[in-house]
Amino acid sequence: MSEGLLAGLRIIEGSAFVAAPLGGMTLAGLGADVIRFDDVNGGLDANRWPVTKDGTSIYWASLNKGKRSFAVDLRNPEGRELISALITAPGPDAGIFSTNLPARGWLAYETLAKNRGDLIALNILGARDGSAQVDYTVNSVTGFPMITGPVGHEGPVNQVLPAWDIATGYAAAVALLAAERHRSRTGRGQLVKIALQDVALAATAALGYLGEAEINGVDRPRYGNEVFGTFARDFSTKDGRSLMICVFTARQLDALAEAGGLAAQFKAIEEARKLDLHDEAHRWEARAELAAVIGPWVASLTLAEATDKLTKAGALWAPYKMPRELVAGDPLLTKNPMFSRVDQPGIGQLWSAASPFEFADAARLPAKPAPLLGQHTDEILADILGLSSAAIGKLHDKGVVKSPRA
Amino acid sequence: MSEGLLAGLRIIEGSAFVAAPLGGMTLAGLGADVIRFDDVNGGLDANRWPVTKDGTSIYWASLNKGKRSFAVDLRNPEGRELISALITAPGPDAGIFSTNLPARGWLAYETLAKNRGDLIALNILGARDGSAQVDYTVNSVTGFPMITGPVGHEGPVNQVLPAWDIATGYAAAVALLAAERHRSRTGRGQLVKIALQDVALAATAALGYLGEAEINGVDRPRYGNEVFGTFARDFSTKDGRSLMICVFTARQLDALAEAGGLAAQFKAIEEARKLDLHDEAHRWEARAELAAVIGPWVASLTLAEATDKLTKAGALWAPYKMPRELVAGDPLLTKNPMFSRVDQPGIGQLWSAASPFEFADAARLPAKPAPLLGQHTDEILADILGLSSAAIGKLHDKGVVKSPRA
Repeated sequence: MSEGLLAGLRIIEGSAFVAAPLGGMTLAGLGADVIRFDDVNGGLDANRWPVTKDGTSIYWASLNKGKRSFAVDLRNPEGRELISALITAPGPDAGIFSTNLPARGWLAYETLAKNRGDLIALNILGARDGSAQVDYTVNSVTGFPMITGPVGHEGPVNQVLPAWDIATGYAAAVALLAAERHRSRTGRGQLVKIALQDVALAATAALGYLGEAEINGVDRPRYGNEVFGTFARDFSTKDGRSLMICVFTARQLDALAEAGGLAAQFKAIEEARKLDLHDEAHRWEARAELAAVIGPWVASLTLAEATDKLTKAGALWAPYKMPRELVAGDPLLTKNPMFSRVDQPGIGQLWSAASPFEFADAARLPAKPAPLLGQHTDEILADILGLSSAAIGKLHDKGVVKSPRA
Repeated sequence: MSEGLLAGLRIIEGSAFVAAPLGGMTLAGLGADVIRFDDVNGGLDANRWPVTKDGTSIYWASLNKGKRSFAVDLRNPEGRELISALITAPGPDAGIFSTNLPARGWLAYETLAKNRGDLIALNILGARDGSAQVDYTVNSVTGFPMITGPVGHEGPVNQVLPAWDIATGYAAAVALLAAERHRSRTGRGQLVKIALQDVALAATAALGYLGEAEINGVDRPRYGNEVFGTFARDFSTKDGRSLMICVFTARQLDALAEAGGLAAQFKAIEEARKLDLHDEAHRWEARAELAAVIGPWVASLTLAEATDKLTKAGALWAPYKMPRELVAGDPLLTKNPMFSRVDQPGIGQLWSAASPFEFADAARLPAKPAPLLGQHTDEILADILGLSSAAIGKLHDKGVVKSPRA
C-alpha cells in the first residue's frame, strides 16, 4: 500500500483536462490512494496533445502520475453501478469523490449519497452555474490578456500557462482536505463546489485589480515585461540569452549594484531625480534610468559571466530557459530531489516530478508513473468491491470492465 | 468568533507579497482565525502598489481580507517573545505557523518548537535551498515566457498574472491542512517546506512540457493566442471588442456551428482536408481554415449580437473584459454570491470576494475587510496571551506593540 502523509485516504476521481487531475495528483503525491475511473475507451482527455510518435498522450501521463486506474464501460448500467459502489465504499477514509464531469443522474451527489450518507463530493465547475468555462475563457474576463505582452501591442495576449487550472487543481485539494477534516469531526459529508471562474475572479480581486479600477478609476495599461510598482524586467546578454532581474527589496538593489559595480550610477540617478532607490515606488519612477544603466552592463556579458556575477552578489534574477534545456542535464532537475527518472509505460524514461511539498515527518514519495488505462481494475474489483475471480472474469467477458491486454 | 468550515483553527502568519498571504486568506475565508503579525511600521509589502491617492495599499488590503492583525516591534526582544508565545500558544487547533519570512533565529522551527513540540510550521520559499526567487524569476526557467505572445515576437513575454504565487498560495493551504490532519491523528507536528520554484517546475512537468521536450525532442513554438492541440483562439467583433472561442469537445463544435450557421462551411473543410473536426487533433490541423470561416462571421456582429448567438447555442466562449468594466455593474460580480460590497477602512467601498468554495454544510462567510495594522493587537494580547490591561498598557508605553490610534 501507499505511504506518505495522507496514506490511507482514498479519493475516487472522475476527471478530464487539468484542474481535476492535478488536484488528485497533488493528494496522490502525499500518499493518498487516488483512483481515477475512465471509460474502457479512455476519457475525454485520453489522447490529448502532446502525444508520442505512436499517439500515446504525454499530456495524460503527466497529469495522472501515482494514481490507480479503473476502466469501466460508462454506458453500461452495470459499469455505472461498479463506480457508484467504489465511490460509496465503506471506511472512514473512503467515500470521497472528486469530479469535473457532469455530476448529473447516476453521478449526482443526491443519487450517490443514498448509498453513503456521509459522502464528500467535490464538483469542479467551469462557471458557478455549471455552464462550460475553461482556463482560456475564464482568463479573458479577468483583464490579464489585455495587459500582458509588449507595450503597443493591440488586442489580447493569451496566457499559454493554464494558470487558473493549476490554481483550481490545488484549490480542489484544499476543498477535499477541508471537507474531510469537517467529516472526521462531525460525521457529516457534503457536496462541495468550486468554479474555475470564481477562482480567477477571486484572485483578480486579491491582487488588487478590482480595487484599483474602482477606487482609482483606472485599468492598468500594458507595461511589457516590467513588474508594476518596483523594478523588475528582462535584459539580453552578449550571447543572445535573456535574463530576468528583479529588485523587490533594498538588499536586492545593493546586490545588483555590487554585481555590476553600478553603485555610483545608481547614486547619480538618485541625485538627478531626487529619489531614494531603496523605496520601490521610487524605483518604479526611475525604471527607465535604471534599465539604461543595467542594460549595457548585461549586454557586455555572456550568460555564464552574468550568472557568475549576479549569483556571487546574491542578486534576485534568473535566466530564461526552455524545456529541452531543462531535460538536458540542468541542475534545476538533476540536483533537485523532487525530480527523478521514471519509466512511463508506452512513453519511455522521463524526468518526472514528485510532490513539491517537503514534510519533515514523512519522507517524500518518489515520482511514480501514470497508470495504463484499467491497470488496477482487477485489484480494485477484488480488494475494494470484494468480487471473486469468477465474478471479475464475468465482467471482463461481458465487456463491462477492462484491464490492459485483457 | 469566526464561523465556517474551519472555525476554531488558528494560523499565525508572518508574510509578505502574494503566496503566503493568499494561503492564509484562503483558510480565513473558510472560517479559520488567521492572525497576521507585522512590525509596528508595517511589513515589506505594507505600501505596495497599487495605492490610493493618499498612499494606502489596495494591494495589501486585497490580500489580507478576513485576517486579524497583530503589530509588534520586531527588533525588540520582548516583541519577538510575544510572537513566539502567540505561535506556540496551547490548544489542539492552534500551534500552526505559516511564513515566507526568513525562518531563522527566533523564527526558526527548532527554536519555536522548544515551546511547543507539536508545532506545525510552513516555510514558503523561493527556491528549495532558501535562496530568493519570485514568481517572475521562477516563471523564466519554465519556458512559458518564450512561447507566450504574438507569433514572430522575439524574446520573452512575461506573465502579468503572478500565476506561481497564486498556485503556491493554494498549495500552502494544502500543506497546512495535510499537516494538521497528520497531527490530529499522530500528535506530531513538523516543519513543512514548499518552494515557488518547485511548484512551477512540477506544474511544467504535469502539463507535459518536459515530456514533450524529452520524448519528442521539441520545444513548443509560439502559437500566439491559439490553444495547442485543439481549436481555440480570439476573434474581433464589428464594434472593436475581442472574444475567445474554444472548441474542446464535439458538442462545442456543433454549438458553434449552430450559433453561426457554419455547419456547411465546417463540412466543406472536412471534405477538402479529409478530416473529422469532431477530433481535436484534426481541428488543430485545420485551425487556419476554421479561423477563416469563424473570423468573418464574428466580425459581422457586435459584441451584443455575438453574445446572444453564442450563448443561445451553448458555445464555449467569453468576451475579453477589463477590471473597470467588471466593477461597473457586470453580472460576473453583481450576480455572483461570492462578491459583495465591503467597506475597507482607509480605502472605501469595494467589490470584495469571499471564498470561492461552496461547502453545502457551511454557509459561505461574507467577504470581510482587511484589518488595519495592529487592529487586533490588544484583544490577542488579552484573549490568547492572557495579559492584563495593565500589562498591555505597559507594552504600548514601551512601544513594543501597536494598535491603530493608540
